[in-house]
Amino acid sequence: MTKPAPCLVLTHGLLDNNSAKTCHGILRGSDRFKPLAVIDYRFAGRDAGEVMDGKPLGIPVWASVDEYFSQAPTEKPVYCLVGVALAGGRLPDEFRDQLLRAMDFGLSLVNGLHTFLGDDPEFSRRAQTYSLTITDVRRPKPRETLRFWNGDIFSVTAPIIAVLGTDCALGKRTTTRWLVEACRQSGLKAEMIYTGQTGWMQGSPYGFIFDSTVNDFISGELEGAILHCFQDAQPDIIFIEGQSALRNPSGPAGSEFLLSGNARGVILQHAPGRHHYEGSQVPVASIASEIELIRLYGARVLAIALNEEEIEEEELQNIQASLAAETGIPVIRPLKEGVNALLPIIQAWIKIQ
Amino acid sequence: MTKPAPCLVLTHGLLDNNSAKTCHGILRGSDRFKPLAVIDYRFAGRDAGEVMDGKPLGIPVWASVDEYFSQAPTEKPVYCLVGVALAGGRLPDEFRDQLLRAMDFGLSLVNGLHTFLGDDPEFSRRAQTYSLTITDVRRPKPRETLRFWNGDIFSVTAPIIAVLGTDCALGKRTTTRWLVEACRQSGLKAEMIYTGQTGWMQGSPYGFIFDSTVNDFISGELEGAILHCFQDAQPDIIFIEGQSALRNPSGPAGSEFLLSGNARGVILQHAPGRHHYEGSQVPVASIASEIELIRLYGARVLAIALNEEEIEEEELQNIQASLAAETGIPVIRPLKEGVNALLPIIQAWIKIQ
Repeated sequence: MTKPAPCLVLTHGLLDNNSAKTCHGILRGSDRFKPLAVIDYRFAGRDAGEVMDGKPLGIPVWASVDEYFSQAPTEKPVYCLVGVALAGGRLPDEFRDQLLRAMDFGLSLVNGLHTFLGDDPEFSRRAQTYSLTITDVRRPKPRETLRFWNGDIFSVTAPIIAVLGTDCALGKRTTTRWLVEACRQSGLKAEMIYTGQTGWMQGSPYGFIFDSTVNDFISGELEGAILHCFQDAQPDIIFIEGQSALRNPSGPAGSEFLLSGNARGVILQHAPGRHHYEGSQVPVASIASEIELIRLYGARVLAIALNEEEIEEEELQNIQASLAAETGIPVIRPLKEGVNALLPIIQAWIKIQ
Repeated sequence: MTKPAPCLVLTHGLLDNNSAKTCHGILRGSDRFKPLAVIDYRFAGRDAGEVMDGKPLGIPVWASVDEYFSQAPTEKPVYCLVGVALAGGRLPDEFRDQLLRAMDFGLSLVNGLHTFLGDDPEFSRRAQTYSLTITDVRRPKPRETLRFWNGDIFSVTAPIIAVLGTDCALGKRTTTRWLVEACRQSGLKAEMIYTGQTGWMQGSPYGFIFDSTVNDFISGELEGAILHCFQDAQPDIIFIEGQSALRNPSGPAGSEFLLSGNARGVILQHAPGRHHYEGSQVPVASIASEIELIRLYGARVLAIALNEEEIEEEELQNIQASLAAETGIPVIRPLKEGVNALLPIIQAWIKIQ
């Protein structure tokens, strides 16, 4: 892969929010883009990493595209990324002005929302005038390039683990990426199947965008991505980034990864501080019944990874201990402890596959 | 709704096969189309209903479009329907000639496959030349008209029942339609939410096409269809036509209807003669574990409806009795007995909702 392209990331007031998970993914590490600054009027003057999770990254936040360029930056960004993934995915009106200004400064756009900027006359005219590009990451692939599931997944001999969650937006992608990195550092050839637009933006070579695929092709596109990964990289282990949650009423998902993707192991991301599925009044199901549900789909939960939001340190330690005792399954806290504690579990699991 | 439009239905050698389920649906009854004849070279000269399930319908089968018109039919068809839903949904080459000949005779086309005839230069040119229409039923709706799930489903006070299956193509749509008809005959205001192209072709006013909807909008489109049905028809009971099966590896589906569509009751269609999920080597899960899986999704299986394929009469009676004893749930055989036996169960269930 070529060198990461320098970029600005626009979050417009949401940098500290789950909605900015696309930006958070880019800040945590991308092989495709190098973030020079975040544009967010609410956090101007601060460090983007410190706003995200308290750990400074040396990436400044500026209030606007104009203010960013007024300081005569030494490295010129090539792209401006839409850094949010709002419920519904449509483009908030307030973003328009900043994106149009970014084009005035010669930046091409990368957008993962459901609203395609390339179809907007004002954006497409400006792109033509300045010879810039607009990449709508969620634009569906041409129908004739999509594939149907055919069972070839069962020829993949590398074990496959899906990182599922008990809700959406609670850290599945980050845990997946960290698991791949930890495995690689321990000498295992590990690969990630991305399934969201942020995974693509982070530069994973294998995957597809789950949300924006026509339903009938989801299982086949997933199978195709895993086959491509297996044949191309010959990995020891494959991790699939999960989406949503099996029982999220606003868009249940997960069984595809277990059945069509043949993931027999699961790392289950869980946020004990969430009481309802995001964007609903429906209570989150108990973790015991989630483990049972996954078992009925033919897969085994190998470990639980806790999301720490809304929970104090002491309570979190209690939850970690009691969940482990209750389920008999190892419970880790990726943000606090990293994911290295899962390596022996994964190595043991590879041996019995 | 206006009068059903007279049509030919093309099945090209597959009339006795599950692949012709679109044709079977039209033969079993449509408010949108009136089938004058089926075109199928393998069954020419026979009665289409007799080929389908042994019950004559007075609808003849002709070997080709040319032979149909050579007998100077008294009623002129307006449409030619593609009557098959092949795995993958692409248009078999052999269909082309018959469809093009149908256009030469002045018929407009209706197509539910994934290959859009309107995008094919030869078809679109011919349609223009003859001033005919091409309706590609699976063509996705414009993105800006799609809706996201927002929880308004919980304002629907009519009970909702989903007709799910333990595999695809085993009679879910037919059972759904018959349940609606039986409820109406008993004085209940019942409505059906269609979720496949055949449901649309049969003329249901409420629904959407599950397979051809971009994944992120499935839950919202389903919710929207149910809301529209509830507000427009004020039904006593709503039946959702299910799709695929919860554990079908080629495209698992079903949890959307239970969670996003808030179906708390399930009629479970089951084919004891199927040993593997269609198009795979994966064994079909036990019905007991399917009932448990549905329970984990918050719904209850009210009855089991048997598909009779590949099973002799005597064995089927044994299966019916033993399944009822094993599960404690009523088991019916829609093709043999109709669905009236379910009426008291549905009426009792409406009362406790």
